Amino acid sequence: MVDAPRIGALPSGSRDSIGDVEGVTVGHATLADGPIQTGVTVIRPHGADAYRHSVPAAAVVINGFGKTLGLLQLNELGTLESPIALTNTFSVGTIYTAMIKHALRDNPAIGRMAPTLNPIVAECNDGWLNDLHAFAIREEHYGQALRSANADFDQGSVGAGRGMSCFGLKGGIGSASRVVGSESARFVVAALVLANFGRLPQLTIRGIPLGRRLAEIANEAPRVREQGSIIVVVATNAPLDHRQLRRVAMRASAGIARTGSNFGHGSGDIVIAFATNGVDAASTGSGRPPADVPDAALDPLFDAAAESTEQSIVNALFAADTVRGYADHVRRAIRECLPDWRSLFDEKADAT
Amino acid sequence: MVDAPRIGALPSGSRDSIGDVEGVTVGHATLADGPIQTGVTVIRPHGADAYRHSVPAAAVVINGFGKTLGLLQLNELGTLESPIALTNTFSVGTIYTAMIKHALRDNPAIGRMAPTLNPIVAECNDGWLNDLHAFAIREEHYGQALRSANADFDQGSVGAGRGMSCFGLKGGIGSASRVVGSESARFVVAALVLANFGRLPQLTIRGIPLGRRLAEIANEAPRVREQGSIIVVVATNAPLDHRQLRRVAMRASAGIARTGSNFGHGSGDIVIAFATNGVDAASTGSGRPPADVPDAALDPLFDAAAESTEQSIVNALFAADTVRGYADHVRRAIRECLPDWRSLFDEKADAT
Amino acid sequence: MVDAPRIGALPSGSRDSIGDVEGVTVGHATLADGPIQTGVTVIRPHGADAYRHSVPAAAVVINGFGKTLGLLQLNELGTLESPIALTNTFSVGTIYTAMIKHALRDNPAIGRMAPTLNPIVAECNDGWLNDLHAFAIREEHYGQALRSANADFDQGSVGAGRGMSCFGLKGGIGSASRVVGSESARFVVAALVLANFGRLPQLTIRGIPLGRRLAEIANEAPRVREQGSIIVVVATNAPLDHRQLRRVAMRASAGIARTGSNFGHGSGDIVIAFATNGVDAASTGSGRPPADVPDAALDPLFDAAAESTEQSIVNALFAADTVRGYADHVRRAIRECLPDWRSLFDEKADAT
Amino acid sequence: MVDAPRIGALPSGSRDSIGDVEGVTVGHATLADGPIQTGVTVIRPHGADAYRHSVPAAAVVINGFGKTLGLLQLNELGTLESPIALTNTFSVGTIYTAMIKHALRDNPAIGRMAPTLNPIVAECNDGWLNDLHAFAIREEHYGQALRSANADFDQGSVGAGRGMSCFGLKGGIGSASRVVGSESARFVVAALVLANFGRLPQLTIRGIPLGRRLAEIANEAPRVREQGSIIVVVATNAPLDHRQLRRVAMRASAGIARTGSNFGHGSGDIVIAFATNGVDAASTGSGRPPADVPDAALDPLFDAAAESTEQSIVNALFAADTVRGYADHVRRAIRECLPDWRSLFDEKADAT
Repeated sequence: MVDAPRIGALPSGSRDSIGDVEGVTVGHATLADGPIQTGVTVIRPHGADAYRHSVPAAAVVINGFGKTLGLLQLNELGTLESPIALTNTFSVGTIYTAMIKHALRDNPAIGRMAPTLNPIVAECNDGWLNDLHAFAIREEHYGQALRSANADFDQGSVGAGRGMSCFGLKGGIGSASRVVGSESARFVVAALVLANFGRLPQLTIRGIPLGRRLAEIANEAPRVREQGSIIVVVATNAPLDHRQLRRVAMRASAGIARTGSNFGHGSGDIVIAFATNGVDAASTGSGRPPADVPDAALDPLFDAAAESTEQSIVNALFAADTVRGYADHVRRAIRECLPDWRSLFDEKADAT
Repeated sequence: MVDAPRIGALPSGSRDSIGDVEGVTVGHATLADGPIQTGVTVIRPHGADAYRHSVPAAAVVINGFGKTLGLLQLNELGTLESPIALTNTFSVGTIYTAMIKHALRDNPAIGRMAPTLNPIVAECNDGWLNDLHAFAIREEHYGQALRSANADFDQGSVGAGRGMSCFGLKGGIGSASRVVGSESARFVVAALVLANFGRLPQLTIRGIPLGRRLAEIANEAPRVREQGSIIVVVATNAPLDHRQLRRVAMRASAGIARTGSNFGHGSGDIVIAFATNGVDAASTGSGRPPADVPDAALDPLFDAAAESTEQSIVNALFAADTVRGYADHVRRAIRECLPDWRSLFDEKADAT
Repeated sequence: MVDAPRIGALPSGSRDSIGDVEGVTVGHATLADGPIQTGVTVIRPHGADAYRHSVPAAAVVINGFGKTLGLLQLNELGTLESPIALTNTFSVGTIYTAMIKHALRDNPAIGRMAPTLNPIVAECNDGWLNDLHAFAIREEHYGQALRSANADFDQGSVGAGRGMSCFGLKGGIGSASRVVGSESARFVVAALVLANFGRLPQLTIRGIPLGRRLAEIANEAPRVREQGSIIVVVATNAPLDHRQLRRVAMRASAGIARTGSNFGHGSGDIVIAFATNGVDAASTGSGRPPADVPDAALDPLFDAAAESTEQSIVNALFAADTVRGYADHVRRAIRECLPDWRSLFDEKADAT
Repeated sequence: MVDAPRIGALPSGSRDSIGDVEGVTVGHATLADGPIQTGVTVIRPHGADAYRHSVPAAAVVINGFGKTLGLLQLNELGTLESPIALTNTFSVGTIYTAMIKHALRDNPAIGRMAPTLNPIVAECNDGWLNDLHAFAIREEHYGQALRSANADFDQGSVGAGRGMSCFGLKGGIGSASRVVGSESARFVVAALVLANFGRLPQLTIRGIPLGRRLAEIANEAPRVREQGSIIVVVATNAPLDHRQLRRVAMRASAGIARTGSNFGHGSGDIVIAFATNGVDAASTGSGRPPADVPDAALDPLFDAAAESTEQSIVNALFAADTVRGYADHVRRAIRECLPDWRSLFDEKADAT
């Protein structure tokens, strides 16, 4: 678990990550070599072949300044039929091709007797720290990330998060989970973010406007315009269908907002939610989970989605290491800029 | 201006209300008599006839548990061609009829040689404090609210806000404005909310989780399920078109989220944004404003939309008076529950 | 069954109407008195109380120039919890109020301990034949229509269709059904339309451009601009969920297009689809039907939705009687204008 | 101009193709070698660099079973900032990469000091005639197509259309234009389609159900399920903005429907519309065209969009040559199957 300020009141799972949703695993391929600071992160919805065993899913676009691939079909059919791959903006095409080739090995009928695969590739622009123009990501990095997928995984400056910036600090991969419900119906809702958004003066953690304080400390290089983005992946073992997952996904926006962002013009703020519990039913083609959660019981799941998203962003920041990359640009880790962060949050806890 | 904690860093207009957007006026009809605690609030986009002089507009539905009328056409044509009326859930029909009858007086060709009017009626459920089943709102209350419209207007337990609850406290009408831009291009973005949403433990003001503290103090009656909602009206004098206003409207959600809400299942969270500067161009029928704001310049307007929405909610709470109504139900004013609120926020200001 | 040209190749149910979907009934209140030529039509999804037993539903807005009420919540929750009422544009408010009052009789907790009702009221503008400004529809007409609801019902110039025009001819209410599937899984998909759209030269029936021929015959009065609309209600006994019903609803647009319309600017073209088979599951609150139709099996249902919509429009025209109304305006029945229609379609059948 | 049945009543431009919209050019790279029958088609909105001179644009997804890339940002910003590339499903990634690399040559600041490019890549599955698994499309084919772009261009079995099937016959690229308006305001609306959709028995041309007749003639190989799609690109010189282009794009669906399709489950039916006249204004970043067309004047443009889409599909069929490809699969040209087509349509013209 990431050593970071604790968001909200709900309990987390044992890992406080998306790995707490049974079956979900995450893998990284990280490229860190001078001007090349980038990578690929893969989220697998379960251990089986996702093409043959799709799961209920939905996506919400909060701000569409982004190149994420696959959401049209995901929302039309209400299912996720591939892992979700995260990478840099220029590598969306390469990873798309890699995902198809990988799926063909196990499913040679794809595109012939069987429908084509709908790969989900989401991206953020890591061009500040990474030499985007080098097109360093190759198809093999997808397989590498996939093979390393595990319920326990690294956060921070790894995988697709290697070159990402967040609130002018080092961003990257963060994840968190929340547990809701009673003994009889206990559900995990968890998030994983690729955090590459926000302007430093806006940064707010647990209601404290840290950004204004940090603005004097951090090495925030000026940029012509904000080009960041945030991709949020929400997973749950609750048996939700497409429509309900769309509602859950929308709540991730509340978590993003509480870190200080107003969904900047140049930020692709995109949420993809899926439910693992529906594996078997979904694979029949209708995307319906086997059980039934009434909408009137969704509020705890909504709270968990917002809270785990907010915690994931905070975890991305606190798990990150300082990275120097392309053109000697540097993004500093928040832990370095704010070594006394614990006392800040303790004070606040006392005050209220 | 409402005496309330100050949200954010942007300057407000002289009224800190939607009345700071030149031409915009607000009127109320308030019914406060024993079990009848309800009303109508009307927002006029400008002083002329809105049917003949429509303005660019857009609406975003964050959570669609609501009966707001008129958004299909508003989003298809990108224009607002009537005042925006707010009232209780059961009175949407009555106010719709009243708005048409009112428009017919000045435009007898409506529905014959000229297109029909598209009245915008938004609602929240005030059934806790108000005897909804009495259907107390009559058509004449629309005209009464309209006639009282003024750039200076009351907030809190007035008009449509009379019977509304917010975070288990007395809610209602709140409004705020923010000013952005340079000398040469100075824009006002302002909000008005009908605040009837939220569960008390969630209430957060300026990052302080007040709700947990207040939960012990306030007389929060248990309810079977949350049935609240929030309607946000955003106005600006910036010459934005429909698509840009849709983007601005989306940012109101960040303001709502920062007060603690995760857009509860039973809450109709709806935002309607319009631009006054486009009056003349819009009235030609295409809804395009006369000037041009590049999207890359929208971030300050987004910040202002989020901040004025958040401030409007806080103002709704702090302007509200305690109300006793239907079945002797009571909603207490936050000022009563928290007389020492100033010291709380001063402490916080010191801490950071 | 309406004596009209036969559309398509799929078999219809025994009534060739929405009454072929078990449980669905339709009732009318018709006002026909000089300048008052208007009414109300009610579609009940089943015989029980719809508030307590909601059904899966979805709506698609093809062109949003219309005032239909209730679609926000219908699409958020994926359920229909009231009958669907059709009426003229100015009477949406009155019928909304009537529907709430009616539901309160059976469910006095509505708006208090239980959520508010979401009435669905759709409308077209009958202002050419009907004195809209007279506001002739009163709340009691809703109950009158409801009480008359039956699986067998009149089509043409009745109910909400009384004053409607279609392709410059007399339009109104039309309905049709199609049956698809095998012995083991036989589904009915049926439509009911309130047809008030189209310009005469466009009218096309079974591929024959009848409108050009009729343009010389029919008494088509010039209008300042097209203000028509079409409301399509699609019902099925197939166990579809909200997302699938949205897909089915979208296919109604193909049926509309084949009659010659290009979804004119001033036409509110709106489709509402619901599934009766989900009654019990839906009433638990999640809107999920009890069984499961894979999306890959939807094509026959899509074909049936398009074909029954097209047939419903044709039936509306051929069931209509000539009506004289407001300001002595007249809309002629197509049967009158084209008494030899049978020979036309026979020729065509021979030719291909 | 393609020798094909003539659709509708509106006049076409001199080329009856999208090349009639001033500035628009189309280029192909065609691969035709045994089992490899595929290609790339590029539509350029104007002769300048599209990244620096974006144009107003909008996209509508009629059925989202497809992998089209770039629509999120196109609809958020309302602009097209790249050519539109069409190719086979498996080559979306390769062409995306090629488009970025190409844009970098002229705009080295992309992804660094300037925002990233949003390439638009749309696809259909040509796996029946083309060995999709060979991944024959390489990055260089994009440049090849781009360099060949011309206002006069081939239709039928060329470019991305090389391996496409339509109604069980040979499909591919088709294009058509329609001219509307008066002397003073004359607008061209034109379409280009990548036609790879439909089941033979549905095929309808000018209202004649040709598919049933052809079903006995054509060599329609059975397929496990329909996997076709249609991409429609609509261009106009009318000064429309994003919202209006979205309305125009929606009307393409009427043109598709009239050829017999009900938007099959497995068909990605996607429309992208852009306006060339807005080049200069759009390049300032707001996507607004310099002039103003009131929405009430859009009906002729709607008719032209539907008619040019329908004509484009018919042209794709009639321009196509029979192609033999992967696994000796064959798709026959409609001209071969129906050499007497002229007499069919003449008869019909006489009959009505």
